[in-house]
Amino acid sequence: MAWPAQMVVEPGDEISGLPEEGNGQPAPTGTRTGPASSLENQEGRGQQGFEGPEKTLEIEFEPDVGHEEGLRAIRREQWDAILEQAQCHILHQRGNDHFDSYVLSESSLFVYKSKLVLKTCGTTTLLRCLPLLTVVSKNYGLNLEWIGYSRKNFTFPTDQTYPHTSFAEEVDFLQGMFSGSAYVHGPLNSDHWYTYVADDCKKSTNAAADRTLNMMMYDLEPEVAQNFYKTDKIQTGEDVSSRSGIKSVLPNAALQDHLFEPCGYSMNALEGQAYYTVHVTPEPDFSYASFETNVRLPDYDALVRGVLEVFRPRKFTMTLFGEDSGIEDIKQSPFDYSDIACGPTSASSTSARYERTLKTTTNFSGDYFSQMGNWVREQSAAAAATPT
Amino acid sequence: MAWPAQMVVEPGDEISGLPEEGNGQPAPTGTRTGPASSLENQEGRGQQGFEGPEKTLEIEFEPDVGHEEGLRAIRREQWDAILEQAQCHILHQRGNDHFDSYVLSESSLFVYKSKLVLKTCGTTTLLRCLPLLTVVSKNYGLNLEWIGYSRKNFTFPTDQTYPHTSFAEEVDFLQGMFSGSAYVHGPLNSDHWYTYVADDCKKSTNAAADRTLNMMMYDLEPEVAQNFYKTDKIQTGEDVSSRSGIKSVLPNAALQDHLFEPCGYSMNALEGQAYYTVHVTPEPDFSYASFETNVRLPDYDALVRGVLEVFRPRKFTMTLFGEDSGIEDIKQSPFDYSDIACGPTSASSTSARYERTLKTTTNFSGDYFSQMGNWVREQSAAAAATPT
Repeated sequence: MAWPAQMVVEPGDEISGLPEEGNGQPAPTGTRTGPASSLENQEGRGQQGFEGPEKTLEIEFEPDVGHEEGLRAIRREQWDAILEQAQCHILHQRGNDHFDSYVLSESSLFVYKSKLVLKTCGTTTLLRCLPLLTVVSKNYGLNLEWIGYSRKNFTFPTDQTYPHTSFAEEVDFLQGMFSGSAYVHGPLNSDHWYTYVADDCKKSTNAAADRTLNMMMYDLEPEVAQNFYKTDKIQTGEDVSSRSGIKSVLPNAALQDHLFEPCGYSMNALEGQAYYTVHVTPEPDFSYASFETNVRLPDYDALVRGVLEVFRPRKFTMTLFGEDSGIEDIKQSPFDYSDIACGPTSASSTSARYERTLKTTTNFSGDYFSQMGNWVREQSAAAAATPT
Repeated sequence: MAWPAQMVVEPGDEISGLPEEGNGQPAPTGTRTGPASSLENQEGRGQQGFEGPEKTLEIEFEPDVGHEEGLRAIRREQWDAILEQAQCHILHQRGNDHFDSYVLSESSLFVYKSKLVLKTCGTTTLLRCLPLLTVVSKNYGLNLEWIGYSRKNFTFPTDQTYPHTSFAEEVDFLQGMFSGSAYVHGPLNSDHWYTYVADDCKKSTNAAADRTLNMMMYDLEPEVAQNFYKTDKIQTGEDVSSRSGIKSVLPNAALQDHLFEPCGYSMNALEGQAYYTVHVTPEPDFSYASFETNVRLPDYDALVRGVLEVFRPRKFTMTLFGEDSGIEDIKQSPFDYSDIACGPTSASSTSARYERTLKTTTNFSGDYFSQMGNWVREQSAAAAATPT
């Protein structure tokens, strides 16, 4: 690898406290009414509540270098060993001509020939995968050339362990392996998004027009959250996908859905070269749902509204990250509007309107960009939708 | 004032270390060749070098409320007391129909009827002005409705004192008085810009189209830096303004220029409603120049290139902050280009080209925005301009 091991802390630098983390609300106390656990693997559960918001790694390797299958040549036992570093494991595997999809005990892994996306939630230790992954990929002759790490501010930051106890610690860990740059997007004392990028290439032309849309949704409506608990009527992930409306949002995708005991839901979907993934933590004190996809649409409006209609959150953060040529492909960006409206989805629900409180756009020199915005549901509509 | 005293640290939050501060280069050691002091008031000088990059406060008051002269009614002895909190004092005063301009021992103060801009450099304690300023402005019946605080990452952060030892400390101080949001723009482990904004109003229509352009320039060419030392040929601020080319960049403005002993330069300029201000720290180990203006131009390109031709820095950070209607007024923004070129200014200099390494744009809900970009001089041009 061409990157020097470079410390993030230069002489003259200061490692200084910044207001960080938390959801801007008091932490839940003894008022919890939800179940004690939302996921089968309880090792990842902290003291205060379940950390739904995921840590995400995207790594790209030089195309057509090394093993002809690229990353897809990595064997299951090797993935098991790599994921063990993050304290999670594979529940289901499925593949198509373009990529392999894994539903994990905590979130998801997608493996293309020259790219992987790994998302893990809870108190998993995602970055600890990197040293072993680097060795394994080298064994297949693969050349890592781009890495991006990102996450929302944690709701329960003090539950995290090394190297995730702060963004500074995460950046130090990454700078021990790569030479990149770290950013905070959005207000430090409210909903913000951390990113770290190390770029050792002009991203290859076959990756051009790449973009990833991510929606991180908080405080789901109670009647929505009910769809993600195991009950007499809801026994399987497939039941949840149908009943919640998720299947209708992705009518052409092959779904891998999983319902956790006693609640919680993970879904990966495959549609040609595109992946979709949904993860839901339904407990009322810290309910959260995420939606992410790399599908290349000229217009994301219908998709974004469809997702909001499924989850009806009180607030959400949306991010778009990709190649400059990727954003140029987008004719109608949901970031262009200060408001997003979505219609009623059932007789008992009403329409909802989300007001954008902030938008940031960052243009990097390597011809890629990120956008991040915060939206909050307008009070009147929310009140109307939740009759008292 | 309508703002509650709200702590930035909510329950569940974490005050966590972020990689912060420093200029990404080793701190100067025993290799200093510059003079021991660049400013008359040496109290502000730290152990390592002079902190050129300024702290900036912009405060707006409700128009046509309180004293008919607004902030301009505040008496000199009151300003003296307020500025004493920041550990600086007034050197020169000048006014026109629209505002009063003060050159300070460390940077500048501009006072309009319903707005003030206060910039202080070194180890001044700018935020400590706020409690007294709040009392004094209330005594004149004025109603504070918008406050913005911003600064670059410090080169010598450990020289700063309370409440400026970290951005977290600054934000805590501000949140003790206001309810605002804090941001970091740009890479945390390189050149970044901190902002804090508390907005208690729809900014008034007479403030609409407001915008402030700020250039923070590092590592001036040695032959440029020579212009800012007191010598036999250079005795006054006026000498510096002419010789450096600054006067030519602002041909229609009334200049208040000051040359410090043995080096360093401050200049305020008045042109109708617009102010310009330039501050130069010429010592080679930490040379720095800043240029800021609120002039409303449809095209800033000539101005930006003119400033770069005067200072010829190795790198600079540029920011633009203002009303949405202000950016809409701008037909040609220097942020639109990935490169900025400026021509040779003398027989011995060559042209220089600056490459943008990053640009961020933040749109706030209160109809204002900020842009921030980092530019670095291309190596070849820099080498050619400094013959060895």
